[in-house]
This record gives sequence, C-alpha cells and structure tokens, in this order.
Amino acid sequence: MSTKPNTIRTAILGASGYTGAELLRLLAHHPSYEIRALTGDRYAGKAVGEVFPHLAGLDLPPLVKIDDVNYDGIDAVFCGLPHGTTQEVIQALPDHLKIVDLSADFRLEDLDAYAEWYGHPHRAPELQTQAVYGLTEVHRDAIRTARLVANPGCYPTTAVLPLVPLLRDGVISTEDIIIDAKSGVTGAGRALRESMLFAEVGEGIHAYGVAAHRHAPEIEQELGKAADAPVRVAFTPHLMPMNRGILATIYVRLADGRTAEDARAALANQYADEPFVRVLPDGAMPATRHVRGSNHCLIGVAADRLPGRAILVSVLDNLVKGASGQAIHNMNLLTGLDETSGLEQAPMFP
Amino acid sequence: MSTKPNTIRTAILGASGYTGAELLRLLAHHPSYEIRALTGDRYAGKAVGEVFPHLAGLDLPPLVKIDDVNYDGIDAVFCGLPHGTTQEVIQALPDHLKIVDLSADFRLEDLDAYAEWYGHPHRAPELQTQAVYGLTEVHRDAIRTARLVANPGCYPTTAVLPLVPLLRDGVISTEDIIIDAKSGVTGAGRALRESMLFAEVGEGIHAYGVAAHRHAPEIEQELGKAADAPVRVAFTPHLMPMNRGILATIYVRLADGRTAEDARAALANQYADEPFVRVLPDGAMPATRHVRGSNHCLIGVAADRLPGRAILVSVLDNLVKGASGQAIHNMNLLTGLDETSGLEQAPMFP
Amino acid sequence: MSTKPNTIRTAILGASGYTGAELLRLLAHHPSYEIRALTGDRYAGKAVGEVFPHLAGLDLPPLVKIDDVNYDGIDAVFCGLPHGTTQEVIQALPDHLKIVDLSADFRLEDLDAYAEWYGHPHRAPELQTQAVYGLTEVHRDAIRTARLVANPGCYPTTAVLPLVPLLRDGVISTEDIIIDAKSGVTGAGRALRESMLFAEVGEGIHAYGVAAHRHAPEIEQELGKAADAPVRVAFTPHLMPMNRGILATIYVRLADGRTAEDARAALANQYADEPFVRVLPDGAMPATRHVRGSNHCLIGVAADRLPGRAILVSVLDNLVKGASGQAIHNMNLLTGLDETSGLEQAPMFP
Amino acid sequence: MSTKPNTIRTAILGASGYTGAELLRLLAHHPSYEIRALTGDRYAGKAVGEVFPHLAGLDLPPLVKIDDVNYDGIDAVFCGLPHGTTQEVIQALPDHLKIVDLSADFRLEDLDAYAEWYGHPHRAPELQTQAVYGLTEVHRDAIRTARLVANPGCYPTTAVLPLVPLLRDGVISTEDIIIDAKSGVTGAGRALRESMLFAEVGEGIHAYGVAAHRHAPEIEQELGKAADAPVRVAFTPHLMPMNRGILATIYVRLADGRTAEDARAALANQYADEPFVRVLPDGAMPATRHVRGSNHCLIGVAADRLPGRAILVSVLDNLVKGASGQAIHNMNLLTGLDETSGLEQAPMFP
Repeated sequence: MSTKPNTIRTAILGASGYTGAELLRLLAHHPSYEIRALTGDRYAGKAVGEVFPHLAGLDLPPLVKIDDVNYDGIDAVFCGLPHGTTQEVIQALPDHLKIVDLSADFRLEDLDAYAEWYGHPHRAPELQTQAVYGLTEVHRDAIRTARLVANPGCYPTTAVLPLVPLLRDGVISTEDIIIDAKSGVTGAGRALRESMLFAEVGEGIHAYGVAAHRHAPEIEQELGKAADAPVRVAFTPHLMPMNRGILATIYVRLADGRTAEDARAALANQYADEPFVRVLPDGAMPATRHVRGSNHCLIGVAADRLPGRAILVSVLDNLVKGASGQAIHNMNLLTGLDETSGLEQAPMFP
Repeated sequence: MSTKPNTIRTAILGASGYTGAELLRLLAHHPSYEIRALTGDRYAGKAVGEVFPHLAGLDLPPLVKIDDVNYDGIDAVFCGLPHGTTQEVIQALPDHLKIVDLSADFRLEDLDAYAEWYGHPHRAPELQTQAVYGLTEVHRDAIRTARLVANPGCYPTTAVLPLVPLLRDGVISTEDIIIDAKSGVTGAGRALRESMLFAEVGEGIHAYGVAAHRHAPEIEQELGKAADAPVRVAFTPHLMPMNRGILATIYVRLADGRTAEDARAALANQYADEPFVRVLPDGAMPATRHVRGSNHCLIGVAADRLPGRAILVSVLDNLVKGASGQAIHNMNLLTGLDETSGLEQAPMFP
Repeated sequence: MSTKPNTIRTAILGASGYTGAELLRLLAHHPSYEIRALTGDRYAGKAVGEVFPHLAGLDLPPLVKIDDVNYDGIDAVFCGLPHGTTQEVIQALPDHLKIVDLSADFRLEDLDAYAEWYGHPHRAPELQTQAVYGLTEVHRDAIRTARLVANPGCYPTTAVLPLVPLLRDGVISTEDIIIDAKSGVTGAGRALRESMLFAEVGEGIHAYGVAAHRHAPEIEQELGKAADAPVRVAFTPHLMPMNRGILATIYVRLADGRTAEDARAALANQYADEPFVRVLPDGAMPATRHVRGSNHCLIGVAADRLPGRAILVSVLDNLVKGASGQAIHNMNLLTGLDETSGLEQAPMFP
Repeated sequence: MSTKPNTIRTAILGASGYTGAELLRLLAHHPSYEIRALTGDRYAGKAVGEVFPHLAGLDLPPLVKIDDVNYDGIDAVFCGLPHGTTQEVIQALPDHLKIVDLSADFRLEDLDAYAEWYGHPHRAPELQTQAVYGLTEVHRDAIRTARLVANPGCYPTTAVLPLVPLLRDGVISTEDIIIDAKSGVTGAGRALRESMLFAEVGEGIHAYGVAAHRHAPEIEQELGKAADAPVRVAFTPHLMPMNRGILATIYVRLADGRTAEDARAALANQYADEPFVRVLPDGAMPATRHVRGSNHCLIGVAADRLPGRAILVSVLDNLVKGASGQAIHNMNLLTGLDETSGLEQAPMFP
C-alpha cells in the first residue's frame, strides 16, 4: 500500500478539534504513521502550533482546506468532521483509502433509525452497508477486512464493552438495563456554546438529553447484536467539571440463578487477552483518573443490594479509548500494523 | 425560653468542621439566633477567624472545649460532632435544651440496623426513641413538638424528598428503585484522608461504597414509612470534583397505569406550598449550580425510554439543605421562629 | 425621590450577564430596592428563571428590550451593558435617575486616554465630566452627591485599594509598582469565546494582555490622584480555573526609611472603620476563598527579601466587591440608604 | 555497567509519591531502563497497582522496605525520599551507583545556607561537595561526569531557566528581580495536610511562604553563578486549583541600552538547540496547559509598560520538567543514553 514498508501515509480531515489534536498527540512520534495532510477549513494556511500551541514543536504539515488534499500519496484517512457533513465527504474519497470515521455518520446500521435520530435521510446509504462499527474488541475480525470503520461514540464504548459479554452469555436479562453516565467536557467538542463555558460547567453537575440522547440507539444496536434480540435501555448522560473521562454506572438484572460473580467471570474471560480492557477484582471499582490519557477501559462489578441485580462500573478517557485511541487501534487493524502500536502510553495521574 | 423575646441563645458543638462554618455563615446576621458558645476541642482557645478566616469579621465567641460549655444560658444546641461520639454527649445535655443533631447517631430508628451499619450497639437507646427524623417537609408536625431532631444525611435528603410523595400516593412501585448519586467533596467533612486531597479528586470521578453505604438504610427507613411497606433500594454514591452539591438520578418503575406526568403532578401537589422545594416543569432538569449556597431542593421528572418507567433528578447543596440549612429550618420549627428565617439567601451562580 | 419612603424603584439594564445576575442575587430580598424593570435584548419576553434558573424562585419582572423601559416610575438604574454601547444609552436617560454604570465607559477621566485604549472617541464627553469614579472607600463624598457613578473595574478595585493610602501618605515610591493579578473566569463575562470554554481554562493558567490591558490606565489614573503625580505601573493579569475571585500580588518600593510595618499601619489606619476592607495582621495572607460571595476586600502585607521593598496581597470577589456589590454600595450612597444595606452576607466557604 | 548493553538496571527509592509514580509512567515502556526495585516503607509488600491503580497494568516489582534493596544488580538510583531523610540514605549507598536525588537535600552548595533554611546541619557534607546541581541545560557537562545529581526544585527550574542566559550575557540587572510563581497542587507531594484537601484548594488562590520559601536560596545560588555576583530575588509562590503546572511571571530591569527584544534574542540563542526549552515569538505567551505531561519548558518575553523593564513568563509541568522528567534527562546523561530517551511524549491537551 505504501512505497516504504510499514509506512502509513496519513491524512486527518478535521484536525482542529480535540479529537484531531489527540490523534496528533498519539501519532506524533509513531514509527509507521506519517502525517501527510491536515485539514481545518477555518484555519487553512495556519501551522498546527497556531491552533494547538501544545503541538507547536512537532514536525507537521500546515492545515489546508479539505478540497486541497491530494489523496494520491495517502493511504489512510482519519475523518474528524462534524456529524452530518461527513457522509458526502467520505463518499467522494478515492477507493484506495482506508478510512476511520470519528463522526456519528456511519454508526447506525438501520437507515430509518438514522433518519429519526439525526433529522434527515442518510446521504450515503450504500456506503453505510459497507461500514463496520468499530468497537474493536467486539468486531475485530470484521474491522480487519473493512475499508470504512465507523468509530463508536464515547458513551457507547463505555457502556457496551461491559454489557456485550453478559448479554452474549445470557448472564443478564435484556430488560431494565439502566446506564447512568458521567462525562467531562471534551466529549462535546470544541464548538462555542454558552453551556460549555467554564463558568457554566465549573462547580456543578447536571443531566442532559434525558431519555433523548443520540447515543441510546447506538448502544441499543450493539446490545441487540450481542443478545440476538431487541434491547432497549435507559441512558442518562451527565456533564461534570473535568476535561477528560467518562464513567458509566450500569444497573442490570441477572438471569435466573446467575450472580454478580458470574458476571465478573464472564467479563474476565472475555477480556483476558485484550491489551486495553481490564476487569477489576472483587471489591475494586475504577476511577476515570486511572485511565486518563491512555487507551484503557476498566470495568468493576458488584452485587447490588437489590436481590438478583448487579452493578457494573466502567471508565475510559473519552478522547482516547472513546475516540482517537480507538480510531488508531482500528486503523492499526485496517493497515496490518501491530494492534497496540502508538497506544502504549501509561495513564497520567494526577 | 429566652430572657429576650425571640432571642434563641445558641451553642454549636463541633463548630470547626464545614457544617459548623456553614451554620455560622447562615446565622451570622440572624436577628433571633444569638451564638453564645462554640466548641472545637482541637482548637480550644482560638478565635473562629483562626480556624475559618472567612468568618474573621464576625462577632463570635472563641472556641472552647466541649466540657467547658455552661448550658444555663443556652436555649438551643446544634450538634456537629463526629458519628459515634455524639450519643453520649447529647445524653448528658440538660433537659431544657432544644437539640438538632447533624450526625448520623439518631437517624436510624431500628437499633439493630444501627448496630449493624455502625458497628456497635447504640449508646443512648432511650433517647433514640424520642428523636424525630428531621426531614422537614415530611415530618414537620412531629418536629415542631420534638426536643431532639436527627438531621438527615445529605444523600437521604436528596433521594427521599422526590420519592416520598410518589410512594405515598402509589404512583410508583416499591420495587427496583435505583438511586445514582453524585456528590462534591464537602459531604465527607474536613477530616484528613488521602482520598480527599485535591490531586486525588481533581479531574476525575469514581463510585464508592457501592451497595454498602450507610445512607442506604436511612433512605430505606424513610421510604418504608412513605410506602407503609418495606423498601429496598440500589444506592450508588460517586465523588466528583466540586466543593458543594449533590445530584441524584433516580430510576423508578411506575405503578400500573401511571405516567411520568402523574409523578410530576403528585410532586408538584405535595410541594406546592413549600418554601424550599420546587418541582420543575416538563422538559427542565435541575443542576447543582442552581441551588449552590441556598436551602433549595429542585426536582425534575422525565418519562424513561423504558416503558413503564420514569426518571427523577433532584439536586441540593449538601452543606445547606443537606446539612446546616435543614438544621436551621428544623430549629426554627423547634423554637417557634418563622420557618424560613435565616434561609432566604438566593443561590449563588456562577 | 420615591413615593414610598425608603423604596428605591430600580431598573437593571443588561440583566442577562453575570453582573446582572449578581445584582439580582444581592437585591433579591432587599427591603428597599424594588426591581421594576430588567432588560436583556436577546432574551426580551423571557422570565429571569429562563435565563438564570437559579433565580427562578424570585418575584421579578420579565426581561424586556431596553427601548421598552418606561423610566417614569424608576428612581435608580444599574447599567450592565457592554463597553462602548453604554455611553449613548446613558446619555439618553432622563435626568431624574441616579445611575451606577458597571461598564468601562465612564471610568477614564482623560478623554484622550479613553480614545487611545478603547479605539474610538468618547461619545458622551460632557457626561464624562459629571461622572464620579466609584471606588467607594476613596471617593465616598463625591459619590454621595453624584448622579452618575462609573463603577470601577474588578482589577483596578483589587489593585488600587491597597495602594492609595500608601501613595497618599508617601509610604511607598511611585516608581516600580508591579501588579501581578490572578483572576477567575467570570471577570470576562458571559460572552462566547473559545478561550473561555471549560476545556480551554481547566487545569491551567496563563498570562494575557501583558503590558496592554485596559485596566492599566484606570489603575494609573487613581494612583496618580493619590500620589498627586503621574504613576505608571506594570500590570499583568492571569486567567485561572475558578469561577470567582481576584488576587493581586503587588511589589512596591518603600520610601526612604519606611518599612513594611509602616505600610501595614497606614493601611490599617485608613481602613479601620470601613465595613468591607480588612487589613490582616502580620504573618497572615488572604485567599480569594475567604471573600467568595461577599463584598469584602482583604489585604495582607509582608516585608520583601529585597531590601527596601514590600509585598502587598489583596483579594476580592470580582462579581461582588469587584462589580455588583460595589455598585450597590455606591447606589446606597447615591440614594441615602444605609451603606451596607444588602451587602451583609458572610463569605461562603468552601 | 550492565550485563546487557544499554540496559540500566534501576531502583526507585520512595516510589509511592507523585514523583515516583511519574518516573514509572515515563519509564514504563522504556527500552533501556529496567526497573529492578521499588521502595515505599508504608506500602512494603504491596503491588504498585495497589498504591497507584493507574499503573496496575505494568510489569513492575512489588514495593519493598528501603533496607531490603540489594544494590548488587542495580546500576542507577532515583531517590524520591522526603527532604531531610535523604542525606544519610544516599551516603550509605554503594559507590558503583549513579544517583539522581529528587529531594532538596543536596541542592544548596553552601552548607551554612542549608543549615539556615532547613533547620539542621547538613548530614553528609562531603557528599555535598560532589553533588552536581542538575539543571540540565545549564550544567550539562558537569552532570555527564557526576555520580550524584541534585535534581532542581520545580520553582527553581521554572524561574532559573529564563534568567540564566540574561544574567550571563548582562542583558538584565541583578537588581530587583521579582518572581511571581503560580503552582498546581502536586508540587506539594502526597502528604496529608488540611491545606491540600480539595475543599481547601478548589475555587481559590492564595500566596504562601511569602518572602520565606526554601526555593528562594536555591534560585539565588544559580542566578549568582550566572551573574558571577550575588543575586537576591523577590519570590512569591501561589497555590491554585490544578493538578499540574507552574507558571512564573518574572519582572526584570534591563541593563542600560538593552531591550526586551535583546532578551528574547539571548534566550532564543541560548536554547536554539535544546530539545525541551522553547522561546516563543513576539506576541505569544505560554500557558501551563501547553506543556502538561511533557518535559517542555516554554518561555515568553514582553516589554513592560515601565520603561527599561521586561516581563518573562515561563511554564512547565512540575512533575515532569520540574521533577521526574528532568531526573530522567539527568540520568540519561549520567548513563550515556540518548538525552531525550523516554521524554518524547507530546503534551496532553485538554
């Protein structure tokens, strides 16, 4: 694919947002990814260091308009454009490119569900049928042979990883799955909104999108596949004052005769060989600060006081495992690189 | 009770913690409460301004040892001592005193439950039978005629206020009540613990005491009274980086034929005349920052995506409505003052 | 002035920003100020509770457009409009109104300096000559008889209060005054700017407007009056992750033979009877958290290690003493109310 | 030195603090450093993951008591023990070890100054004469041939790097150097102190150790060497609510005829080839968030409004360039590894 063995010539479309910056941070000194093009329409002509001063020291090409990218010398594209605008951009890309799309545009496999939740018909329905949902640990084999990967949302990644093995193995019921999620601010991107000002977020917490968040159908799609039956969930996101991190507290009903320890065993078994998912021992619960800056997802399990129920807690860094890290993981699979390449950074605490 | 009409001569036992400071803030310029004694064993002999520089400008007596208080000239006592040590202190107080206890020592009416959750037999069992649980809106009449009020915990106040009317009226089931609570740090007091250092709390969130927190039996006691039947709940507290505030997201199963709107109506009806509890209109959800520094509790209601279920969100400031504000509210009732006296401050935002 | 004795019928122009909300918080239950009109062009027709949910419970008129205010029944106006638009608005107000303007439009007495720093000629130069700079403790007598008060900026209030007595008494040199100031985010208002997003402010600090901030000439104007000589200062503001508070660390050269203790004595003497300014004893230094939510300014003094120099540290809450609290203090003077009326709240900590 | 070429067999003494954790984060996947021993007396017998859950996934030896380390198979020691206890520990270490000490115990070359500032006579005065002050960019040659490096304090690193070239070249005066520094909380370590609780630090800032901080003599020692004359500075540290980062705003008097642009040129010239120090162009000022998690130091320069003066702003991450990163940099020099090895991580923003 590339003229140099093991070199992936890469473009990042929409590099001026937080997920773009995070891709650059993680790939900055990567031995195989060579950043050839960066786009950011509002910032075309500027150096990366003008948009993101923390990246000023890196040897990177300047930002250009998306129409000015020449894809001839490109093997792989990370697409970090806003939801809704991505479908047509990706449809127009040359066939030889491997693509990981970080937007929501190709995540919902049911086109009617897409139209309902995103307010317009899908603009690239044929491409949608080729896209693979990029929850790496769950769809690894399909990802390897895909051309276009729809990188999962940050909330779905946090919620689905602990639930898939339990639904697959019938350890829990498909009924009454309640997902209470708490997120830092970067999940909302860098767009200007009053509700994201420091003074509006600091020293407080609130729920938003209650019973109406677009990540609910995405979660249900993946849980339905795992259960081989329709699954409907309660999903409540909350915004809290931190930059990075999501924690999901998940309340589940155990199947008859199954225990919280069965749930832990099923999770531990499923993720035993995974480099980035770790199931904690009995008595331990994860914290978002234990995964900050890393591609890790940690999962804790406890018996509930309510008989026949269990509580799962999972955490990840929404910009890494919930976005750019998982995107690199997927691109490593698409391009045949070592899976963990570029993702070995230990978490940063404090 | 007092030589001057309408003057409540007051002692605060344990005034060097955050709830003590908050009592002083709220009572600082109160026309009726006259602060006569403040105790803080570690700080005996010091001025309040040495322990709490923000209170340095107030005209307050110095801190003394608890044994050095002369109760002859005292009418009312706020007790903010640590859990476990309070029972014997209060038992030794003269009979003429009105007492609001902010510790957990008199909250559990079942002495066996107390022994189980607090690890030792109750040390003042007869006094326990006289104590009234001080959830003001729920037990107002009993509080008025009490001598000793057990001021509720901050989590129980947040969780019980939205649930009591719904259980009383049979709008929701007693089964499967799930309370997911998020708290700032001051709920844990001013004690030195590594887990409460800024660097351990900042930029993160974690669950703690999962299925094992002492506020669970307190919540269940009050819900059981409202339902007139035993109630068991899932209760998961989380610690997050803010100074003040608790938000509880509560997932409930509606009774047959009842809707989320019925729930809102029952709450609105119950709290219509309450000065400090407000039920939000459809579509609105509360934020902790909207009650900061005030004695307010706000409650939002939404239909869940899961059929037959609803989601309640309630918020309060754990140091005010969840501790010192509610304590003053209760003392106002005990002493015949106007109920809202000293508690009219509007919330402070940002 | 008012039909009811002691009732000040009040309008707040520009009530949808943080200083507007803070005026409403402080005046919410005030016995004398009656809020008759609130303007907010973007929000005209909305209730205050829709713009500021924390104020939803108060009995307040809805927001209207500024052109729709009838000033016949109004005695006093707080003007919280953006810089630059205020001059013409105030010029058009009826003569019977007492006005406190929280913008920068009337602060600089030198019209040339105004044109230089604000980029356009002053639009109400005659009105400027009548305006009194509202640093209450310094210009109290002039404020009492004024019609229009220019409420000081938050940085100037913090920096000028500790310096005026020292320059007046000749305790320090006019040379080499260095003001290093650290501010929370609300000083910048509620306007949408990328640099004010939580993710851009959290977990960091930076200097801005170095040697070029508009508050420098305002500071110099007031120091010049105190010294009766031109004064030029180094002034560096920094933005840090907190909602409220300014701390200024001020490095001064002592006059020959004078000591840091002389400086403390001069300050203590000057502010001995002031209700809101307190000079700390030797060895104590103030923190912004000790004044949060209050109208207090605290000042600490220390000898420097550099011979012949001293260090002053002053703190205040930028929304109260640095804006709305000082505005009310000034309006109390304009209208003959008790000076501290509405401003007695103790600081809120934590 | 090691049996395997390029393998540095390493012990970390005092690995349970924040600087210990940071050494482990940076060295986790290092190709040359092999972690052979970790000590933490309070935690002896525990796995690293029990003390620092974010490091649980790494392959590391358990913590042991310091007396249980066998140094036969060790080449290099990082010493992160508390100030005061370190001198005797290091004195007892075998001669073959290369040592970087992160405490303050060997930083002051003047034993009288040490006794004055640390309250007791130095306990290893001969060893002190061999120690090299490890400000890497300034003392690189001496470090290369040293056995014991005294790793600089976080404040001195931030303040000295921008000043040394200016004093060496005579661009600025040695008089009236004023260093106003703002730090996050991890500079104070993980010790239990009330003043470091989240509720005591959040939403506030204060100055501490005014004119009396132990880093002042350390700064003066290094500035004195650069100026070849005694230098005395004003140094005021402030504590602010963030986990990582120091920003120093430095006010200097220019030498006759020299300008701020001369200062920038001298700095740019000095640091042109340095991998970790970057001088910003005119008009740009650094922020701590631009260096978080990295070994970078950024320096900005501006002309002051006060004639003949300039303002320098420097930033770094106190746990990396201000502690563990600089320690690794120094150890790379001591052991002949590539200088930047293990320190290439890009900053993490947001």
